Amino acid sequence: MSTTPAPAHRQLHLNAFLMSTGHHEASWRLPESDPHANTDVEHYKKLARTAERGKLDSIFFADSPVLFGEVGRRPAGKLEPTVLLTAIAGATEHIGLIATASTTYNEPFNLARRFASVDWASGGRAGWNVVTTAGPDAARNFGVDDQPAHAVRYERAGEFIEVARKLWDSWTDDAVLADKEEGVWGDADKIRTIDHEGKHFKVRGPLNVPRSPQGHPLIVQAGSSEDGKDLAAKYADAVFTAHQTLADAQEFYRDLKSRTAAAGRDPETIKILPGIVPVIGATEEEALELERELDRLIKPEYARIQLAKTLRVDPEDLPLDRQLPENLPSEDEIEGAKSRYTLIVQLARREQLTVRQLIGRLGGGRGHRTFTGTPVQVADAIQEWFDGGAADGFNIMPPVLPSGLEAFVDQVVPILQERGLFRTEYTGRTLREHYGLPRPENQYAGAAAPELASIGSAF
Amino acid sequence: MSTTPAPAHRQLHLNAFLMSTGHHEASWRLPESDPHANTDVEHYKKLARTAERGKLDSIFFADSPVLFGEVGRRPAGKLEPTVLLTAIAGATEHIGLIATASTTYNEPFNLARRFASVDWASGGRAGWNVVTTAGPDAARNFGVDDQPAHAVRYERAGEFIEVARKLWDSWTDDAVLADKEEGVWGDADKIRTIDHEGKHFKVRGPLNVPRSPQGHPLIVQAGSSEDGKDLAAKYADAVFTAHQTLADAQEFYRDLKSRTAAAGRDPETIKILPGIVPVIGATEEEALELERELDRLIKPEYARIQLAKTLRVDPEDLPLDRQLPENLPSEDEIEGAKSRYTLIVQLARREQLTVRQLIGRLGGGRGHRTFTGTPVQVADAIQEWFDGGAADGFNIMPPVLPSGLEAFVDQVVPILQERGLFRTEYTGRTLREHYGLPRPENQYAGAAAPELASIGSAF
Repeated sequence: MSTTPAPAHRQLHLNAFLMSTGHHEASWRLPESDPHANTDVEHYKKLARTAERGKLDSIFFADSPVLFGEVGRRPAGKLEPTVLLTAIAGATEHIGLIATASTTYNEPFNLARRFASVDWASGGRAGWNVVTTAGPDAARNFGVDDQPAHAVRYERAGEFIEVARKLWDSWTDDAVLADKEEGVWGDADKIRTIDHEGKHFKVRGPLNVPRSPQGHPLIVQAGSSEDGKDLAAKYADAVFTAHQTLADAQEFYRDLKSRTAAAGRDPETIKILPGIVPVIGATEEEALELERELDRLIKPEYARIQLAKTLRVDPEDLPLDRQLPENLPSEDEIEGAKSRYTLIVQLARREQLTVRQLIGRLGGGRGHRTFTGTPVQVADAIQEWFDGGAADGFNIMPPVLPSGLEAFVDQVVPILQERGLFRTEYTGRTLREHYGLPRPENQYAGAAAPELASIGSAF
Repeated sequence: MSTTPAPAHRQLHLNAFLMSTGHHEASWRLPESDPHANTDVEHYKKLARTAERGKLDSIFFADSPVLFGEVGRRPAGKLEPTVLLTAIAGATEHIGLIATASTTYNEPFNLARRFASVDWASGGRAGWNVVTTAGPDAARNFGVDDQPAHAVRYERAGEFIEVARKLWDSWTDDAVLADKEEGVWGDADKIRTIDHEGKHFKVRGPLNVPRSPQGHPLIVQAGSSEDGKDLAAKYADAVFTAHQTLADAQEFYRDLKSRTAAAGRDPETIKILPGIVPVIGATEEEALELERELDRLIKPEYARIQLAKTLRVDPEDLPLDRQLPENLPSEDEIEGAKSRYTLIVQLARREQLTVRQLIGRLGGGRGHRTFTGTPVQVADAIQEWFDGGAADGFNIMPPVLPSGLEAFVDQVVPILQERGLFRTEYTGRTLREHYGLPRPENQYAGAAAPELASIGSAF
């Protein structure tokens, strides 16, 4: 008998969501923090190596093509994520590299190409978090006065992914013959135009990048609206989501797995990762003191303006020491981040929070679950949701960087490893392998390739 | 007396134009060549380190968002240049990093941001070769059936650069206060919307990247049509160009310097770099043998299709052993790469080349000047044009990579250094410093910043 024993327990997947000095909006004010970290590639390389030391599946950067106005509040402006992840690729060997990019403000050819390039540059570690970019402010950087409607953005996103997949499949894996003797580099029968014509896009192809190590970079989705969940069910390999309670997370998990099955896919092939902001201390009191220190550093005037924007009310209508006003718009009226809106309103109502208290809760993780405690308590919280049918893993959002990631990697990960919940070594090389996902088949396998010769070049 | 002596001679600028296994279309067939180099970042990192060993100003990648059909001919498909240069940035310290990107098939916000990000990631070494992307084939990857007209593409390119510059200036250099005590990260009075409304673009801004180390990445231009020269005169810091004869190069140099002065700029601030394909051998005979070996490896059937496309004729109209047909379109009828078209026709007519001979000449450098000889002869050829008022430096296009770059760096550069024509050490850190160009002033210096607060974010 020489079979490898199966792990005693289903395995967690862990992503580190990185953001300048940390997810807590006041983290940059701590003495330890470098307020210029947002443009410092060395800062991010160090974080990525820390995550890799912890054998995490991946790191991730959020993104929106806009600078928001409250620049006093926290580090604003940053490096474009595909550039930043490429810089990190050369400083790491295993960790997956997930970048957000918008389907509303990009062209499929350009973006498919960029992710294929990052996949090559990283040896198969690229992932794309597909977002539709809520809000009119981003639109105004692209010649339009307001964002397209929510449903239109999601319709475009679905077609965008379809086009990207066709482009990624426009070369077979064995299209490069490299036959020096005969003088034939590529096989024109294995490289094809895609000739896509849809409602939003018309793209001939082929891509000008050979099929990349993963075939398709990992597709991540993070919208939790109805449209967002349907998009995820159809296309996503992994989902980042935000829940405050176990019951909400379980409901979301059941719902999305069932939508995925209804879309004709194996529900095992979509990995659901709720966000968690772990505030870690050697003792519970130390952890609580860190949380209090961070919350003391929040300047509520900035956050109130942002909360008012999210809730579509005037900042004057949000006195700091009163609860939210009764009359707020319904989710249907919100064209932006629908599910985040509902989460915030429900949190405030459920716990009867004043505006000031709500700002404190949101300042730590912008609606994600903050969990404050010792390493064992954090590991317990993770295991409870994981075993309770609420998660396939977690999106770890350290409140302070680098210290919060170091605490998680050095203190929480070993506990998860001891419990048999998490890998002690990487067993694969690619991001898909880390997440236990197969390399996608080429959708054109066996199909005759249309004639390429008509696509000419100038000398 | 302790003044530093001025160099005895005006200083050359040298850029290495890198392309998979080399510029000669048959280079990939040589025993030494790796035919998979086109997707291998390690190959390019090694080349960049070689260029850096030679103290070159920069490396450069050409680009077009399209895959041409003759995939048998030579390595096709490659990594997107801003991604590739970012991968290289981490493996080098000084060399400048210039990527081509299209103004016709990108949005200014996205591209300005990406180049600012590469500039941050490289410590101020980013350059952007601005192209308008000729040909209908690229257009078909972006939902349009044909390219915009030449003049329209150049008009858009000019406005695109204007928008990019405004975005790069939308933060002052001192906009980040990082005042932990007061809790004020950025100064809203030093970050501004640009509110650009032009014929082609409407962009609010600000950029979501702080002003980068160089202020503006270096702007390179490589079109030699009338429109191209006017764009260069107005905006370019450096120009890549192709000439076969000293007289043509002198005429171009005089013309562009005078257009630059007419545009109100100091002609010293535009660096003109003709391309040269140096085929280097220890003896003249060795160099000629390398050239003959490469030309023997060309398969004329591929090249004839491409030549026919460039000349807008049928391949059948180009018998290999006859000269070009008499009736070819005039440059005015060409909407693509106008100046390249004229250069090819003139070369064939002037030297009475057969199609087969023309293909051999073009296969080495696609219209750029091939110079075959010993290291001393190559250095002489460079110095002749440099001293003869034809160049501020050269765009070095090794026919074979890595060996052709190694030969140039190890055998030609030392001769140029001994002659006092080229630096022996880097004296600056940024690409602009290598080219002796000032860091651009911020165009909004002293202007009042429009109100940012209305640009809100969602939690």
